[in-house]
Amino acid sequence: MQGNQVFIFDTTLRDGEQVPGCKLNTLEKVDLAKRLEDLGVDIIEAGFPISSPGDFESVNLISKTIKNATVCGLTRAVQKDIEVAGEALKYAKRPRIHTGIGTSDYHIKGKFNSNREDILQRAIQCVKWARNFTDDVEFYAEDAGRTEDEYLARVIEAVIKAGATTVNIPDTTGYCLPWQYGAKIAYLKNNVSNIEKAVISCHCHNDLGVATANAISGVINGARQIECTINGLGERAGNTSLEEVVMIIKQHKQLGFFTNIKTKQLNPLSRLVADTMRVPVQPNKAIVGANAFSHSSGIHQDGFLKDSSTYETINPDEVGADGSKIVLTARSGRSALAHRFQKIGFDFNRNDIDVLYESFLQLADKKKEVEEADLRNLAEQYQPAMSGAL
Amino acid sequence: MQGNQVFIFDTTLRDGEQVPGCKLNTLEKVDLAKRLEDLGVDIIEAGFPISSPGDFESVNLISKTIKNATVCGLTRAVQKDIEVAGEALKYAKRPRIHTGIGTSDYHIKGKFNSNREDILQRAIQCVKWARNFTDDVEFYAEDAGRTEDEYLARVIEAVIKAGATTVNIPDTTGYCLPWQYGAKIAYLKNNVSNIEKAVISCHCHNDLGVATANAISGVINGARQIECTINGLGERAGNTSLEEVVMIIKQHKQLGFFTNIKTKQLNPLSRLVADTMRVPVQPNKAIVGANAFSHSSGIHQDGFLKDSSTYETINPDEVGADGSKIVLTARSGRSALAHRFQKIGFDFNRNDIDVLYESFLQLADKKKEVEEADLRNLAEQYQPAMSGAL
Repeated sequence: MQGNQVFIFDTTLRDGEQVPGCKLNTLEKVDLAKRLEDLGVDIIEAGFPISSPGDFESVNLISKTIKNATVCGLTRAVQKDIEVAGEALKYAKRPRIHTGIGTSDYHIKGKFNSNREDILQRAIQCVKWARNFTDDVEFYAEDAGRTEDEYLARVIEAVIKAGATTVNIPDTTGYCLPWQYGAKIAYLKNNVSNIEKAVISCHCHNDLGVATANAISGVINGARQIECTINGLGERAGNTSLEEVVMIIKQHKQLGFFTNIKTKQLNPLSRLVADTMRVPVQPNKAIVGANAFSHSSGIHQDGFLKDSSTYETINPDEVGADGSKIVLTARSGRSALAHRFQKIGFDFNRNDIDVLYESFLQLADKKKEVEEADLRNLAEQYQPAMSGAL
Repeated sequence: MQGNQVFIFDTTLRDGEQVPGCKLNTLEKVDLAKRLEDLGVDIIEAGFPISSPGDFESVNLISKTIKNATVCGLTRAVQKDIEVAGEALKYAKRPRIHTGIGTSDYHIKGKFNSNREDILQRAIQCVKWARNFTDDVEFYAEDAGRTEDEYLARVIEAVIKAGATTVNIPDTTGYCLPWQYGAKIAYLKNNVSNIEKAVISCHCHNDLGVATANAISGVINGARQIECTINGLGERAGNTSLEEVVMIIKQHKQLGFFTNIKTKQLNPLSRLVADTMRVPVQPNKAIVGANAFSHSSGIHQDGFLKDSSTYETINPDEVGADGSKIVLTARSGRSALAHRFQKIGFDFNRNDIDVLYESFLQLADKKKEVEEADLRNLAEQYQPAMSGAL
């Protein structure tokens, strides 16, 4: 079970789709599912079938459409949920049921008003129910991030024995730091006797801004599946960003892992998801933000123009982004100005640039971003002086 | 030098301000500097004085205005830069000059066409120049993230000897993973003989989405200053988010650190920065995103309504956010529906809710987000049936 492939479990259509402001109809969901399959996602979580007739229909249609990826439906540890999920997934080539229950004392007491023994039995039971519909059953131990390790290990051992083939260890509240989350995964690797029979999955929320680091820490410590979403969409501050974990695995080859994701599709798909789900991506978002490959400080621009590797470790082309941008502001230096003049056909020498740079700075202090038309004006005003014409 | 306080060095007005699309005039910069001082920031990086007359003026005016925080100006390892910064900071109560040079082989060869010995001498020289203007000198080893540890340690030892009181270890390209960045800081702690005479600073970029985790890893390994920005603004995919590192330090008390930040101001200041700098924050941004405290899945809403700690570890009030939101979508359950009816004065029993829930789901599948007016309609259509009126 312990290969070097990290399976990418995309939950854009489930954890991502449920956020406020997001609006997707069934056909848009089917279309996105196809795009996710093209991207190379291994498992598509298509929805939560019992939650509404609309969601049932979406999971059902996606099951009929998707040919290669596994299609997954979410349930609670409730028999009816699981039966409805089984029905929704009936036509899937590779159906997976994702079932589970809260295992932290916060959830056992605050949500279920129950006790650890009872929850353990319900965990075993839900996996058995799910196995009636498919051999591919994933169990989630909700709020595992705040579940005591010893009890968590008992639950995980029991559900694997009951037939779970993937065990999901969610940091539901986004509370863990990377070394804590990693230590939890390592604890399970070392203390669950049958752990080799299942894939460990990371499902990390981003409430403290460290979901990506947590998921990678999980993989380094023995997990082989990451649950994530395009643009990091999801409950509250969102879920782990698919594009970030995939590019970390790709860039940091010394880790020794790989995924099936075709990274050139990351930026086009990010834009499609932002548009159809109506949730914008901020310009300073890693990998897919509008400014992710823009260089604006003079120091950076100068270095970048001499050798792009001074300030860039990812080639924008590798993730389907437009080429690196050299933006002209009052923070830009002479080499960036000369470069941009050159791009529109003005090949000034060093003395020319020294003179032009002063006018450029005055304009940039007023206008902030200096654009192509401004450069043409500057160049035209300068030309007569150069030629000495009066 | 090694207390438990982590100094917050805000560079919203320098690393943040230089991004494409951002537009701030001098008065807006002075106003933001005052708000940053109120927030409790220890050091405000106000600009890069030599870069343009406008930036010089901003640093100068901020120096005259700010009373408690340290005001800092950026320079290259160039005498003229440092003299201009000294002049811009002349009226500051606590002036700091931030100077330095690239130390990775990428920078030494690709940018400076130089060698390690020469760069070491230039590093020592720039710190000495800066010390002519102020006793508070911070040295940055640009691209430290990709600088060989042994050479980096030599440079850091030499600049501390030359008078640097803070040493900044930037992961300029955002390439490091948290354990790598932490190991680099630990290496410096253990191998630089005079390291106790300076504060180690983290300056992490977010190109792979792990800037926050890197900065915290740096602090755990011995750093005591974090360079960061409101909303994570900055070059390319941005810098470390101030709000994220501050809340990690506050939430994870077992780490044993504290900052001076008044966290209730985080959300109001985030909105002000997004508005005046014209760079939006995505809804799924940690701590300050519009959805950071919204609960929309039925499972989460049910748990949250029973006990908020099941799904929330930060109280929104603590960071100045509007209260937690229960958003009604097709993913919501009966308890959320009952709660929202109650909030507008309809106290339905369990049987009522069962009937109303079906109509609610039909509406939610069509409309996605169900609002107060929709609930009133549902309630009014239902009332006559309840009373048996015909």
